[in-house]
Amino acid sequence: MTESFDATEVIAAKRDRLELSDAQIDWVVDAFTRGVVADEQMSALAMAILLNGMDRREISRWTHAMIASGERMDFSGLSWPTADKHSTGGVGDKITLPLAPLVAACGVAVPQLSGRGLGHTGGTLDKLEAIPGWRADLDNDAMMRQLEDVGAVICAAGTGLAPADKKLYALRDVTGTVEAIPLIASSIMSKKIAEGTGALVLDVKAGSGAFMKGRDQAHQLAQIMVELGTDAGVRTVALITDMSTPLGLTAGNACEVAESVEVLQGGGPADVVELTLALAREMLTAAGRDDVDPADVLASGRAFDTWRAMIRAQGGDPDAALPTARENQVITAPQSGVVTRLDAMAVGVAAWRLGAGRSRPGETVQAGAGVVLHAKPGDTVRAGQPLMTLHTDTPERFGRAVDALDGGYDIGVEAPPVQSVIIDSVR
Amino acid sequence: MTESFDATEVIAAKRDRLELSDAQIDWVVDAFTRGVVADEQMSALAMAILLNGMDRREISRWTHAMIASGERMDFSGLSWPTADKHSTGGVGDKITLPLAPLVAACGVAVPQLSGRGLGHTGGTLDKLEAIPGWRADLDNDAMMRQLEDVGAVICAAGTGLAPADKKLYALRDVTGTVEAIPLIASSIMSKKIAEGTGALVLDVKAGSGAFMKGRDQAHQLAQIMVELGTDAGVRTVALITDMSTPLGLTAGNACEVAESVEVLQGGGPADVVELTLALAREMLTAAGRDDVDPADVLASGRAFDTWRAMIRAQGGDPDAALPTARENQVITAPQSGVVTRLDAMAVGVAAWRLGAGRSRPGETVQAGAGVVLHAKPGDTVRAGQPLMTLHTDTPERFGRAVDALDGGYDIGVEAPPVQSVIIDSVR
Repeated sequence: MTESFDATEVIAAKRDRLELSDAQIDWVVDAFTRGVVADEQMSALAMAILLNGMDRREISRWTHAMIASGERMDFSGLSWPTADKHSTGGVGDKITLPLAPLVAACGVAVPQLSGRGLGHTGGTLDKLEAIPGWRADLDNDAMMRQLEDVGAVICAAGTGLAPADKKLYALRDVTGTVEAIPLIASSIMSKKIAEGTGALVLDVKAGSGAFMKGRDQAHQLAQIMVELGTDAGVRTVALITDMSTPLGLTAGNACEVAESVEVLQGGGPADVVELTLALAREMLTAAGRDDVDPADVLASGRAFDTWRAMIRAQGGDPDAALPTARENQVITAPQSGVVTRLDAMAVGVAAWRLGAGRSRPGETVQAGAGVVLHAKPGDTVRAGQPLMTLHTDTPERFGRAVDALDGGYDIGVEAPPVQSVIIDSVR
Repeated sequence: MTESFDATEVIAAKRDRLELSDAQIDWVVDAFTRGVVADEQMSALAMAILLNGMDRREISRWTHAMIASGERMDFSGLSWPTADKHSTGGVGDKITLPLAPLVAACGVAVPQLSGRGLGHTGGTLDKLEAIPGWRADLDNDAMMRQLEDVGAVICAAGTGLAPADKKLYALRDVTGTVEAIPLIASSIMSKKIAEGTGALVLDVKAGSGAFMKGRDQAHQLAQIMVELGTDAGVRTVALITDMSTPLGLTAGNACEVAESVEVLQGGGPADVVELTLALAREMLTAAGRDDVDPADVLASGRAFDTWRAMIRAQGGDPDAALPTARENQVITAPQSGVVTRLDAMAVGVAAWRLGAGRSRPGETVQAGAGVVLHAKPGDTVRAGQPLMTLHTDTPERFGRAVDALDGGYDIGVEAPPVQSVIIDSVR
């Protein structure tokens, strides 16, 4: 079917800064998926791509080769328009939880295929699994039914979407090649395009707790992904958002669900509400429903109703008490003043070490573990006043969590300037 | 024993252009040899080294880590000083054959561990195996005895020297990472230092038939290798020599043995004699015997006597007729004039295709196959006069050999400038 190449020659071409042809890209992705291109060859190619880059055509072709490795979903039979959101991951990033039911309540269906957490970043599925009875795994038919009936579904991606990406990601993870922007962009976008959403809003994080620390890098990644989506006929927009400090006041699983429910009930931290509404507006606009104001729908309680229906449809009890951790430890302010900095990475690592996250795929997480913040940058504190509370079922974890927070916050005299969580947009 | 690291972090350091620490290098080479660092991790690291380089300390440490992966030989018990030569490989490069007995006849023992050919470059062992009865494999004791008795041995390297290099070379071969200068230098020098020679002369080829096409690259490789040898206490010198046209008038196996015997008997092509004497002088000087003139020893016939003793000591019959190929085909000059160019790569590929070389390790080669040249650059030819004769046991190979020679030579009006085969030296 496809032309055949010598793997070493394809690697050598990228090593020598040549462009890979469409046929070379189609072949190498397919041959890698079939095991004809060996892991040691693909990892050498991934390193060459990381260091020498790929141009727009190459990235686009690579993405489509990964899509072609598996099945494509099709939501065109739904009576709703569809829009999806993808975040590059951060600390306290529970936005999907209030966002999906909110957008559905505004009339746009949200087919949210989510993942689990790894390292310091949490996973949407891990958070929702804190809800008694809730199930992440749905087959395609059940997903379609729930989308039609409720308008929102948050579930695990099936293995049929972009299997080349799954295999390549596992290889990149152990070969120092995760950080290749062309491969990050094609990994995210191959799954989102294969998923079949009509519109897509990307939340590209920048800052200490984000995968991309620098704003320039985040902007570059956003630009490439918007181009890939647009080229594939998906209306795609990206927001660059701040991840130098955690989103909201919670980083963990059950505690983030509770905070999301607060937002859906009309409360919650200002930054979480701001970002949820901004992303909702982008999704509605991209799906052709900019006539609806999500702030009104949130205030009306209809988003919360959709949340309850969505949780129930996947076996969860929205009224059940959420699990809490067996032990807690309070960290107090060492001096009086204004919180000038609270580092997202420090809080994310602390939550991970408390048991909210995992070090390897497949590890179990503690539903009740995490960090609850009592003050954020700009808040005034007195010496001895609680700054945050650490929660875990396994108190031997407190020591390393406290270590992670060492140097992770500053208390000063002058309040830092108030800044929006939204830095920029790419469309 | 050694400190332990995370392979991904070592790869990421080189990816991010950081220097690897001594401890990181020791660990990664050892762990790769033991299979703890996986092939896909080492190939990603090799690509990062190829693209981002290593500094002198890193290359030196890498070399020593490869030496430490295996045994070291020790010639200090010999009554002779020792000197070895290594060529980076070319077309018609039979120099080791006359050189080793010549240097031995001058009073310096030559422990020459050689390899087999791959692709368009020939292998010294393949050439000597054209001699009936000659054996390449000697154990260390037999090698020492022959060195003491005869002063020269040319044999296969045992598997005990630098096993890390053997494993890494096989991986580089399929992952587009052969061309990394730090890895080429450490591969060559780890084996030569582990071999235990007191002095080493490197013949670094530059030109179309060489691994390094450009003189700058060849000079850079030579510089690194001389530094590595010197740092390890081996008196090391490099000559940069021309490989744009084949050495001598033969490229093959038996035909190159015959040409070497001519040189040892006081005849042979001028370029082969020139390079043999130049390398011999460097080896003698590096071994502290610059009081002997190898030209005198060659003229005396004593080098030829040592050759006969060396061949006999390894089971070969120096008086036996050499094998000849069953078929031959003559290529004639298409016009009258002066040969202005004869491309080493074209001749090397032709000889390989005729059966003198191999495409994969382990393939057998034809002893009688190869190319015999009747004219070299600077020689005047008449239209229809033989330019070269192709030899093979398998005449179906003639077609692709002739194809390889297409465009491989020019016949013009003006003779090219006469140039020495020796371009430069690094010491």
